[in-house]
Amino acid sequence: MPIYDHFLSMTGMHLQESAIRRMGTALAGAADLVSFAPGYPDPTLFPYEALDAIAHGLLGGRQGSALQYGPTRGYPALIDALIGVLATRGIEAVEDEILVTTGSQQGVELAARVLLDPGDVVLVEEPTFTGGISSFRNVQARVVGVAQTDSGLDPEALDTTWVREHDAGHRIKLLYVIPNFQNPTGRLLPLSARREILAWAERRDVLVLEDDPYGSLYFEGDATPADTRPLKADDAAGRVLYLGSFSKTLAPGFRVGWMTAPAPLVERFETAKQSADLASGSLDQRIVERAIRDGLIDRMAPALRAAYRRKRDAMEQALRVHVPDRLSWRSPRGGFFIWATLAGGVPDVELLDRARAHGLIFVVGSAFHVDGRGHDTIRLSFSALAPDAIDEGARRLAKAFASGRP
Amino acid sequence: MPIYDHFLSMTGMHLQESAIRRMGTALAGAADLVSFAPGYPDPTLFPYEALDAIAHGLLGGRQGSALQYGPTRGYPALIDALIGVLATRGIEAVEDEILVTTGSQQGVELAARVLLDPGDVVLVEEPTFTGGISSFRNVQARVVGVAQTDSGLDPEALDTTWVREHDAGHRIKLLYVIPNFQNPTGRLLPLSARREILAWAERRDVLVLEDDPYGSLYFEGDATPADTRPLKADDAAGRVLYLGSFSKTLAPGFRVGWMTAPAPLVERFETAKQSADLASGSLDQRIVERAIRDGLIDRMAPALRAAYRRKRDAMEQALRVHVPDRLSWRSPRGGFFIWATLAGGVPDVELLDRARAHGLIFVVGSAFHVDGRGHDTIRLSFSALAPDAIDEGARRLAKAFASGRP
Repeated sequence: MPIYDHFLSMTGMHLQESAIRRMGTALAGAADLVSFAPGYPDPTLFPYEALDAIAHGLLGGRQGSALQYGPTRGYPALIDALIGVLATRGIEAVEDEILVTTGSQQGVELAARVLLDPGDVVLVEEPTFTGGISSFRNVQARVVGVAQTDSGLDPEALDTTWVREHDAGHRIKLLYVIPNFQNPTGRLLPLSARREILAWAERRDVLVLEDDPYGSLYFEGDATPADTRPLKADDAAGRVLYLGSFSKTLAPGFRVGWMTAPAPLVERFETAKQSADLASGSLDQRIVERAIRDGLIDRMAPALRAAYRRKRDAMEQALRVHVPDRLSWRSPRGGFFIWATLAGGVPDVELLDRARAHGLIFVVGSAFHVDGRGHDTIRLSFSALAPDAIDEGARRLAKAFASGRP
Repeated sequence: MPIYDHFLSMTGMHLQESAIRRMGTALAGAADLVSFAPGYPDPTLFPYEALDAIAHGLLGGRQGSALQYGPTRGYPALIDALIGVLATRGIEAVEDEILVTTGSQQGVELAARVLLDPGDVVLVEEPTFTGGISSFRNVQARVVGVAQTDSGLDPEALDTTWVREHDAGHRIKLLYVIPNFQNPTGRLLPLSARREILAWAERRDVLVLEDDPYGSLYFEGDATPADTRPLKADDAAGRVLYLGSFSKTLAPGFRVGWMTAPAPLVERFETAKQSADLASGSLDQRIVERAIRDGLIDRMAPALRAAYRRKRDAMEQALRVHVPDRLSWRSPRGGFFIWATLAGGVPDVELLDRARAHGLIFVVGSAFHVDGRGHDTIRLSFSALAPDAIDEGARRLAKAFASGRP
C-alpha cells in the first residue's frame, strides 16, 4: 500500500474537522440518545404535503429542465424569487449580485477560497460557528477571535484587534459575523453596533461576510423584524457579502442557499463554484423556488417562530427545574441555541464525557473558540426536540453534573 | 467602492473558467440554436413517472430524514446500494471506501484540494475534460498533458512524460484518466493499456484518479461490458481513486455521484467535503437510492445505450452528407461525443465564430488541451438532441465552413 500521507497537500494534511458534524454522525447510530448537539430544525415542522405537491407538479409535468444540468449561477427563476426575499429584509439586489449555493456552508467556503491566502487574517466573533472556523483554517488563513459583549460582537474590541493584527504586519481581509441569534451564543447584535461595524469596515478597508440563517426566526415579543435588519441592507459602500439559507425555515435536505455580494465578487465566486460542483441541484432549486412563489415559506414563518419559542421556553424551564445553580445563560430572543456558562469548575469536555454515559450529547463550548478557551461553556440546541425530550435531556444533564461529585 | 481585486487570494485571482459551462450559459438564452456543445443527457429519456412515484413515496410518507441534514459521508442506505453497483463493475468496496459526492466534479475538486499543492504535477490525457483542468489549475497545480494514440492514453508516452517531469525536479502525484469513452475524444482504452497504467502507477509511486461517467453507455456490438472494466477493479495496490456518476444514466439534476478510494484517503475527502458543503442533498440521495434498489437504473440502461447509439449514427450520417471532406473522426464505441479533426486549415475558434452566426455551437478542441494546441479539432455532442436537430446542426456546420470561403 502507498503511504497515503505522503500524497497529501498542505490543505489535505491540516484539514479541520467540525465538532458538530462529528456529533451528528455519532448521533446517527444511537437509539436512546437525547441530542442537544446539532442545530437541526424540527422535522415534524417540515411541510411534507405542500412539498409533495410541488415535487409532483415538477416531475409529473415532465419538465426536462427540472432534472437537467443548470447554470452554475443558479436557476434563473429562483434568483428572481430571491430578489423578492431580499427586498423583505431591506436588501436591494439585482440578478448579477446573487449566486445560488448548496447552503451557507458553501458560501463560507467559496469566500474563504476566493479571498484568503495562507496567513491572511479573518476576524471572527469569539465564539463562532465551527463550519466557519473549518473553512477558514482549510485555506490556512489566520483566524482571529474578537471578544463579544452580552449583546454580541464588540465594535471597540473589533478595532483594537484590527490594530493589533495590523501592527503585527498581518493583512486583515475579512470579518465573519452572524448578527442574528448568533451561533453559538444566540445573541442579537444591536442596530447601533451594526452601523458601527459598517463604518469600521469602510474605514479599515475590510470586507464583511454576514451569515444570516436565523434572521426570520425571532421570537415575537422578544424581538421584531426591525431588530434583525441585516448589515447588507445598509451596505452603501459595497463591503458586505450576505449569506442566506432555507435550511432552518423550509428544510435543510434540499441544500439550497445563496450569496448576495458585489457583482465583481459574485462573478469570481461563480467561477469557483463551477469547479467545485458545476451547479446546485436542479430539482432542489425548483422546489425551493415554488415554495417561495406559492407563499409557503412566508406562511410557515409565524408557526416556526412560535414553535421554536415554545422549545426555548421548555428548555429554560427544564434547566431551571433539573439543573438549578449549575448553569447560567441569557435567554435567546430567536434562533436555535442556549449558550450556557458552567458553574462549579467542571470543564465542558469532561461534562460531555459524563453526559454521553447518561445518553445525552451537546457541543462543548471550546469547539466554537479559536483561542483555546471556552471550556466553561456549552451549547444546547433546543430546535429539533419535542418538549418531553428536552425535559429528559435536562434530567440527564443533571445526572452528568451529579455523577462527577466526589 | 472597494477595489475588489485587492481582496482576491491567489486562487481567486487565477480561477479558471470552464469553456463548456460558459457555452451552457450562453445556450440558456437563445431560442433557435442547435447546440452540439454540452455533454447533456437527453431529457426525453429521463424516467419522470418512476421518479415522481419515488418522490411521492418519500415525501408522502413524511420521512423526516428525507428532508433533514444527513451525514457528510452520505446516506448510509445509498452507500450500501453503491457497493452493489460497484460489484457489477468488478470493484469490491466496503463502506469505508465510499464517499457520496454532489457529482463527479466535486470528486475531482476534492482530490485536487486534498492532494495537490501549488507546483505539484498532475498528468492528464491530452486532450481532457475541461472540468478536470479547472479544478487542478485552481489549486495552482502543474497540469501536464500526456499524448493519446487512437485508442487513448499512451502508456509509453506516460512514462516518458513522468521521466521528463521528474528529471526537471517536479513532484508527480496524480494521473487523471477517463478510460471509458473519454471526454472529449470518445476513446475506449484497451484493457492491456489499463494493466500497464496500473503497473506504472505502482512503479512510479503515483495515484490514479479514474473518472467513469460513461462506462455503462457502451454501444452494443461495438463494445462489451468487459471492455469497460475500470482500472479500479484490478487495483490490488490501492492506487486508484474511482469516480462514479448517475448524471448520464439517471439524470444530472440530482447532483449525486460518488468516490471509491482507499479508506485513509476517503476520510480526508470527507473532512474536506464537510467544510465544502456539509453534505449532499438528502432527498436527492434517497431518490437515487430508490432508483438503484428498484432496478430502475438497470432497466433503463439498454434503452439508453440504444438511444445514444442511434444519435451517434444520426450524427455520423448527417456529417457525411452535409460536411463531406471537411471533418475526419473515429467512430466512438460509446458515450456522448464525436471528436473531429478539421481539414482545410480553418482554426476551431474561427469555425465556432462562424457557426454561431448560423445558430450552431460546439466546443472548440483547444479548450480541452493544456498545451495550447488542438486548434484543428472540435467536440460535437450528439447526446441531447433528436435526429432532426442533429441533421439541422450538421447543415449549419456546413454553412459555417462555406461562409469562410473567399
